[in-house]
Formats: sequence, C-alpha cells, structure tokens
Amino acid sequence: MRSDVNPPFMGLIVQKFGGTSVADADRIHRAARRAIAAKEKGNQVVVVVSAMGDTTDHLIELARQVCSHGGCDKSPPKREMDQLLATGEQVTIALMAMAIHAQGHEAISFHGGQIGLMTDAAFTKARVQSINHHRILKELEEGKICIVAGFQGVTPEGDFTTLGRGGSNATLVALGAVLKADVCENYTDVDGIFTADPRICKNARKIDRISYDEMLELAGLGASVLQTRAVEFAKKYDVPIHVRHSQHEGEGTWIVAETPNMEHIVVSGAALKKDLTRVTVKNVPDRPGIAAKIFGDIAAANIVVDDIIQNVMDDNTANISFTVEHGDLDDIRPVVDRIVRELGSSARAIYHGDLAKVSVVGVGMRVHTGVAQRMFKALADAKVNIQNITTSEIKISCIIDKENGPKALQIVHDAFELGNTK
Amino acid sequence: MRSDVNPPFMGLIVQKFGGTSVADADRIHRAARRAIAAKEKGNQVVVVVSAMGDTTDHLIELARQVCSHGGCDKSPPKREMDQLLATGEQVTIALMAMAIHAQGHEAISFHGGQIGLMTDAAFTKARVQSINHHRILKELEEGKICIVAGFQGVTPEGDFTTLGRGGSNATLVALGAVLKADVCENYTDVDGIFTADPRICKNARKIDRISYDEMLELAGLGASVLQTRAVEFAKKYDVPIHVRHSQHEGEGTWIVAETPNMEHIVVSGAALKKDLTRVTVKNVPDRPGIAAKIFGDIAAANIVVDDIIQNVMDDNTANISFTVEHGDLDDIRPVVDRIVRELGSSARAIYHGDLAKVSVVGVGMRVHTGVAQRMFKALADAKVNIQNITTSEIKISCIIDKENGPKALQIVHDAFELGNTK
Repeated sequence: MRSDVNPPFMGLIVQKFGGTSVADADRIHRAARRAIAAKEKGNQVVVVVSAMGDTTDHLIELARQVCSHGGCDKSPPKREMDQLLATGEQVTIALMAMAIHAQGHEAISFHGGQIGLMTDAAFTKARVQSINHHRILKELEEGKICIVAGFQGVTPEGDFTTLGRGGSNATLVALGAVLKADVCENYTDVDGIFTADPRICKNARKIDRISYDEMLELAGLGASVLQTRAVEFAKKYDVPIHVRHSQHEGEGTWIVAETPNMEHIVVSGAALKKDLTRVTVKNVPDRPGIAAKIFGDIAAANIVVDDIIQNVMDDNTANISFTVEHGDLDDIRPVVDRIVRELGSSARAIYHGDLAKVSVVGVGMRVHTGVAQRMFKALADAKVNIQNITTSEIKISCIIDKENGPKALQIVHDAFELGNTK
Repeated sequence: MRSDVNPPFMGLIVQKFGGTSVADADRIHRAARRAIAAKEKGNQVVVVVSAMGDTTDHLIELARQVCSHGGCDKSPPKREMDQLLATGEQVTIALMAMAIHAQGHEAISFHGGQIGLMTDAAFTKARVQSINHHRILKELEEGKICIVAGFQGVTPEGDFTTLGRGGSNATLVALGAVLKADVCENYTDVDGIFTADPRICKNARKIDRISYDEMLELAGLGASVLQTRAVEFAKKYDVPIHVRHSQHEGEGTWIVAETPNMEHIVVSGAALKKDLTRVTVKNVPDRPGIAAKIFGDIAAANIVVDDIIQNVMDDNTANISFTVEHGDLDDIRPVVDRIVRELGSSARAIYHGDLAKVSVVGVGMRVHTGVAQRMFKALADAKVNIQNITTSEIKISCIIDKENGPKALQIVHDAFELGNTK
C-alpha cells in the first residue's frame, strides 16, 4: 500500500474537500476513504466539505429565476440568499456521513449552526467570530469522524450566513485553529502549490514547503488554491496547511511558519497577473488627505486596487497611479472621473490598459542582495520593457505589456532556476 | 376581483403549500400572491411550505446512490437522512421569501431550528413537542410574512428531524395551535374534501363543512389530503382547517369542531379501501393476553392492522380476524406463522386476499337509526356479498370482494344521496 510510505501520524487532522472532489457518489466515496485512512492511522479526523460540483450555481440560478419572474428583477434579500446557499453544503455533509457509514465507520455531520460556527451578520460575506467545539470534541472522543459544512455559519440569532469566496478554506483553517489541529489538509484537484502556473511554465515545479508570508503574497497575486484570508488565519494561529491532490497519494505542499533555513532559497515562486489596467491621476494637489479621499471613494465602490505608486513633482503636485483588474474598469471610471472633477481643472485621469504584472516571491530576499537586479536584467535581456516596479519585503513586481506576460513569467522563472532540471 | 366575494378577515392565518404548489418559480410566485392577498386584507400571515416538486425523491435517490456504492448497500443512518431531507424545504422557504420580496412585500424564512420547532429524536418520524413562537410573533408584528419549512424540526441538541409522511400538515396545524391562528389554510391540488373519491364516483360532491371526527375516520380510510395525525392535533387545539385549491379562488372544505346542526346530515362521505388481505387465526385458546400478544408482535414489525374481529367458539377457542394492506402480506406472514407455532398444534392461519372495504362516515349516525340497514340493503340489492362488518360510533364498514369495490362505493354513495343532483 502506497500510504505506508507516509510516516504514521497520531493527532487531530482537519481535511477539506472542495466541490469537484465531492461532485458525485463516486468522488464522495473516494474522499470518505481518505478520511477513513487517516482515522485508521490513529488520528481524530474532522472533514470540511463544499457543495457538490455545480450545486451552488444551480441554487443561484433558482434564485435568479424567482427574483426576475414577471419582470420584477429585484436582487434577493441577502439573508434569504444565504439561507438558500447553506443547503448546498448541508447536502454534502449528510451524504459524506452516509458514505463513511457505508464503508463501515462511524460519522456524524454538522451544519454551521450545529457546531456553533458564529459569524457577524454580514450576509454573503460573513466573518467567523467563534466556534463552539465541545460537540465536535465529544463526538471525536467517541471515535466518530465529524463532517462539517464549509462556507457557512450562523448569527447569534441563528440565521445562516455564508463566508464569501473561498469560504470553505476559512472554515478549514478556523476549525484547525480552535481544535488545535496538527494539520489542515486541503484536498484539491492540483498536486500542490507550484513555482509558477504550470499552464504557462511547463517546467514549473511543485513546492514542498512554503511560509505563510510567501503564500500570502502568492495568494494576493492570484494563486487560486488558497485565499489570502485563510492563509492569514492559519498564520495567526500557526496551523500548518497541507495542500494536496484529492485523487493521488503523495505529499503536496506544506504551508508552515517560517524557519531559518527557508532563507537559503532566494525565490520560492513566480506569478503572473494578466489583464490589468493602470489608472493615473495627474496633477493632484500635494496636500494631506488627498490619497485617502481617492482610495476611500474607490473602496466604497467595492473595487480592489493594486500597486499604488505616487510621485511628487517639482510644482507641488503629485501623480498617483494604481492598477486594477481590467474587468473593473467600467466600474472605476465614473468614480475616478468624479474625483478628478472635484480636484479642480488641472487634474486629469489617464487610463492605460493591456498591462500585466510579473512577480517573484521569497523570504530569502530579506538576506540575499541582488535579487531585484537579477530580475530586471533577465527581463531587459529579453527586451521586455518594465513600466512600473513595486516591492514588498519579500516580493518584487514589474508591470509590463500584457503581450509579454507569459514570456516574462518564463524568463524570471528560469532566471531564479525555479523549474525542474531537464 | 374575485377575492372580494370572500368576507374580509382580520386575524392570523397559517397557509400551507404542498410540493406541487411550489414546484417551480411560477408556482412559487402564485403561492406568494396568495400569501400577499391575505396580508393585504389585514391579516398576519405565516406560510408553511414543502420541498419543491420531486426534490425529496431526488435527495432520496442521492442517498441511495451513496449507500449502495460499490455494493456496500447499507441503509443510511436516519439522523443523516433527516439532515439531508431537511434541505428540501429549506430551499423552498428561501425562494418563497425572495418571491414575496420581488412582489414588493417583506418576508423572512425559518427552518425548523430557527423557530425552535422541537421534536423527540425519532429521526424520520419525529413528533412535535413544542414551538418557540417568539421570533415568529416578533416578525409578524413588524409586518413581515413568515415562511416556515414544513416537515422538519430539531432535537434539543439541534439535530434536524423530519416528521414522516404528511409532516408538512403536522407543521401547519402545530403552528396554527401555538399561534392561536384563526384558520389553517391547506392549499392542495384538489378543491376540497369530497363525498367520495371523484375518480370513482363521477357525481361526488365537494363537502363544505365536516367535523374533525368525520375527517379522522375518512383520513383513516385513506382520504389522502390530510393525515390522521394532523386532524387529531387540529381537533385537540380546535384549529379550523380550510382545505382549498392552490390555483383557484373559492371556498374549499372547512374542517371544524362538531356543531349540533351537523347531525342533520346522516352520512357525510363514503370511502373505499382497495387491496386488503384478511388474516384469520383459528382455534386460538380463549384466555386473557393472547390478543395482546398477537397484535403486540405485529406492531413490533411495524405493520398497521385494520378491522379486528374476534368470535368466541363453543369449544373455548376463538377465531381472530384482521385486515392488512395487501402490500404488507409478505411482512406479516412470517410474524403470524411464528405466533401460530407458539400457540400450539390446533391453531392455524388462513390468508384471504383480493378484498376491499367500503365505508360510510357521518356524525348523524349517532341520532339517526336505520343507517346500517340502508347500507346493507343497498349492497344486497346490487348482489354485493358482505363478508365482514365493523362499526364505530360514526362509521360503518363492510369487507367485500375487491372486484366489487368501485361498484359498491357508487351504490352506497347513491343510497345516501351524497352526490350532486343531476
């Protein structure tokens, strides 16, 4: 048996299976076998599941049909939307418990209310506030595998809430934290976190271990396996996350607290964000509070802004640039145009589309010098023009033309020797 | 407007819409309009809904797929079955609240746990114990229409339970009782309760008013609109039930406490139960406790027995007969055969299939004489042989050959002039 090669592990494991990993009876049984295998090694096992396959889309479509009926076309009340969506995971937990039972083991399922996963009342994007873990611990001690509905919680009044995009990962990590789990296993349809998107860099390599901070940067750059929020939570409570493939054995990527020897690796991964638009507001009066006003108005319109750059000119005005996803352009244009009118006659806005951002991330940058120069030189040698540069302590990003994006990712990936040796 | 012909009604109304009345967005909107119409007349309105169309069947099929996967074929744990099935009504309540919202009114949905509909822990056939009506009353006072998931409750631990067959009607009547509703409106796909099954008696007539006791007898005889349990509960708390068509205006059938003038009507309705088998245990020792033993063993096998007849013979033995639904024969035969072996060598069991039962029901029997004779004579005139007779205070039943069933129903229906005059 392949699983014998893994070291025996005695502790408390929280596993999470996403929607594609529980899309039908067959996959639910495969996930059940994973949970049972961990149990049979002597662990206590908690399993978090998402809604099956396209169930959530189906429920959203039902709501759309009802709300657009007869031409009324009102948006559904958010409380009712969450009441509806919460059923998706509730179906999966019951079926998963049945599958484990069918395989001869004991399991018990819990929706968000049944384990007291309390959130605020921000329906459709609620935040976890606390979990009453007594019931889970009692059932674990009785030898049962506990199945928990991801993505959902309840308000103090008992109304269902949902946790927004990536909510099941938030459930995974929150449970890991309150149960003081030894590991959170995030089962997905990929082998782990890669040094770059393998669809672009054919020689991208699976990363064995990565720090929370590096993963936070990569998640912010669009690595879709884990959302920033879940990683922040894992870092705060120091819960190791193991991202692995639901259909294969073998280790995936461990996301863990930083250790000194991680700094030996200068760069852990590279990432590409495509389809960006840069917005530049020129001739902004250089006085306190203007930037806060601009970005406050944009945030109020629910638009996420990236890579803010401000230069002060000689004439006591400033140019403020930032990038947004190209898809947000229609939403942000009226907001920025209004701000420009309010700033006065000399201010104006320039929109520059068809951009991309290539980035490298690594805690080793803190101690190694010359990382930025190596990146810039590699791009220059390949005649890729760098339009803007932004950095954090462990990340360097370059804004480039969109058409150079995939090539630039491969170039920096090679420059830091991230790929598999051929 | 047609609804103007109904008298204005100011009070608290609980409405219930079954699965076919909420099967799609269009029907949900029609049901929503019913609720809004009642609200606009000045009533407080609570709506109980079932799962949409064939949702429950779909969920049961999912459970079957999971439990029979890879040939394991275990029955699902009942707690998990209820966790699964509870999602059916939860989807409908959210969509119904959205539909009312889309039509410009305020609504809020509640699953079984959110209104504290407490039951025992008899999963798949739980009994209502209490309802915490404070949340509903608060929302009603704020002018909202409250939507409640039928068929489900929770245990004190917060586990979902379901109320078994006809459970949504139990929810309707229980809510009507705790909220002291002025009426429970049961919306169905029929116009009301009929003097006989209109598929058999073409001249069957809708009954305007019927007493709880008469309805109990008819429900026990298989009139499928309301289950015995819901009627018992309505009688106990004196909640009037109005059974009416979900797609038509106009009055249906009111089920109410008995009033003196109901006795003017000798017989309110007639019913036919098809496909019965009679079991006769002959030569049973005539001593105390034997009947209790026989029917105790049968009840333990979860088989419902009907029409028990016992005759004492000259030789201090008795013959005990009873009827069961023909579909239960395979289950009851081993139970009865074992009882016969235990009773000793002279006892034996005889099974007589292909029987039917025709009955007439009416509180007027208490004061009118000659009802039984009129029924027997009508059957005799039509050459229908009566094999057994059983009576209650307000019911007379005759066991006859199955092939005579429909004819016999029409004969007694005509004999008591129950149908529409031509």
